[in-house]
Amino acid sequence: MLDEVVGLGAVTMLGVLEQAYFSLQVIHARRKYKVSPPSTSGPPEFERIFRAQANCSEYFPIFITILWTSGVFFSPGLSSVCGLLYLYGRLRYFWGYAESAQGRLAPLYFSAKVLWVLIGFSAVGVFLTFCRVYLDVDLLQQLGSALF
Amino acid sequence: MLDEVVGLGAVTMLGVLEQAYFSLQVIHARRKYKVSPPSTSGPPEFERIFRAQANCSEYFPIFITILWTSGVFFSPGLSSVCGLLYLYGRLRYFWGYAESAQGRLAPLYFSAKVLWVLIGFSAVGVFLTFCRVYLDVDLLQQLGSALF
Amino acid sequence: MLDEVVGLGAVTMLGVLEQAYFSLQVIHARRKYKVSPPSTSGPPEFERIFRAQANCSEYFPIFITILWTSGVFFSPGLSSVCGLLYLYGRLRYFWGYAESAQGRLAPLYFSAKVLWVLIGFSAVGVFLTFCRVYLDVDLLQQLGSALF
Repeated sequence: MLDEVVGLGAVTMLGVLEQAYFSLQVIHARRKYKVSPPSTSGPPEFERIFRAQANCSEYFPIFITILWTSGVFFSPGLSSVCGLLYLYGRLRYFWGYAESAQGRLAPLYFSAKVLWVLIGFSAVGVFLTFCRVYLDVDLLQQLGSALF
Repeated sequence: MLDEVVGLGAVTMLGVLEQAYFSLQVIHARRKYKVSPPSTSGPPEFERIFRAQANCSEYFPIFITILWTSGVFFSPGLSSVCGLLYLYGRLRYFWGYAESAQGRLAPLYFSAKVLWVLIGFSAVGVFLTFCRVYLDVDLLQQLGSALF
Repeated sequence: MLDEVVGLGAVTMLGVLEQAYFSLQVIHARRKYKVSPPSTSGPPEFERIFRAQANCSEYFPIFITILWTSGVFFSPGLSSVCGLLYLYGRLRYFWGYAESAQGRLAPLYFSAKVLWVLIGFSAVGVFLTFCRVYLDVDLLQQLGSALF
């Protein structure tokens, strides 16, 4: 079991490190633009970095949840690859948003698409497992038999 | 293992879809009331939808965590049913809050109660597992013997 | 499997209860300082409690994620102990922040250090599992042979 999900574990750890990096960037920006906690308003350069981190944090639990649902019920390999793409998209989103509000859009749409792929994988995986467990029908096997 | 938790997987996936729906509603409201990111202030109609989504997002990781703790240590079936009730309560909360601040209260209390039930299930499940593993006492079995 | 992770389950449940406690404190503070939802601004006493809860909520999914990654891939026992330390640090952070902005700092740094330890455990655990699964090298065993 552990062997199959080690890729998911690696992506999860990278995701946590990425969130740590975003948090450190906000602390750095707070010092640079002299915005002390608990205030969250300041020059636009600060607010963009703050909002970029907040948005990534908001999506982090959804990402981790769907990464593991897709990995466990569908395919750990494909889900890990999607996970890496998502984390790469979030990094480009953060850097893009730090430069301009416009710069966040392309990587944001990219990350959203990757999330939808993971949601699709999860849906297929959960549906097939449901059919196998409760209806005693192995759709994958039947599809195989029908094709070959 | 996978077979036992497929219900939890299905509820998890529905939860992610519900969060996606809330996010899309905020994007829709941003366009309708002309509130561009990173601003989060606007007419009360917009702010209620924004806050409804923010509150659901904040509780999402707590919900997923306790759903699985309760499902794995206590009962996957009962936890899945509670999970569905929670998601239904959150949907009614979102719609209620979108209409008026008052409209959010009844479904909010309902969702909170369901969360407490899941916390209770988890507590019982973790406690029984602890007794079995570390004290070598199977309380469920002893209860059964004492009753019959 | 379940037996090994019961400590993680207990820490997870305590973490959820701690979040519930923080949420109840915010509701209490809203009544005390008469700040009705959806507003989140008010006297500094209220805002500190509000920000303390928001910060703990933001870190909760990261904590749970790294607790389980570290517990499953490295050591459930050591991870559970770190988890308890983290939750204790967060409690002291919340109480400290409620009294003064300065009072949050020491426990905040403490919690951050515990998180880094968990990230370190996860990194080691995932790396060793990777070596074992994909390179067929059991580094722990080799280290043992080299030392004795």
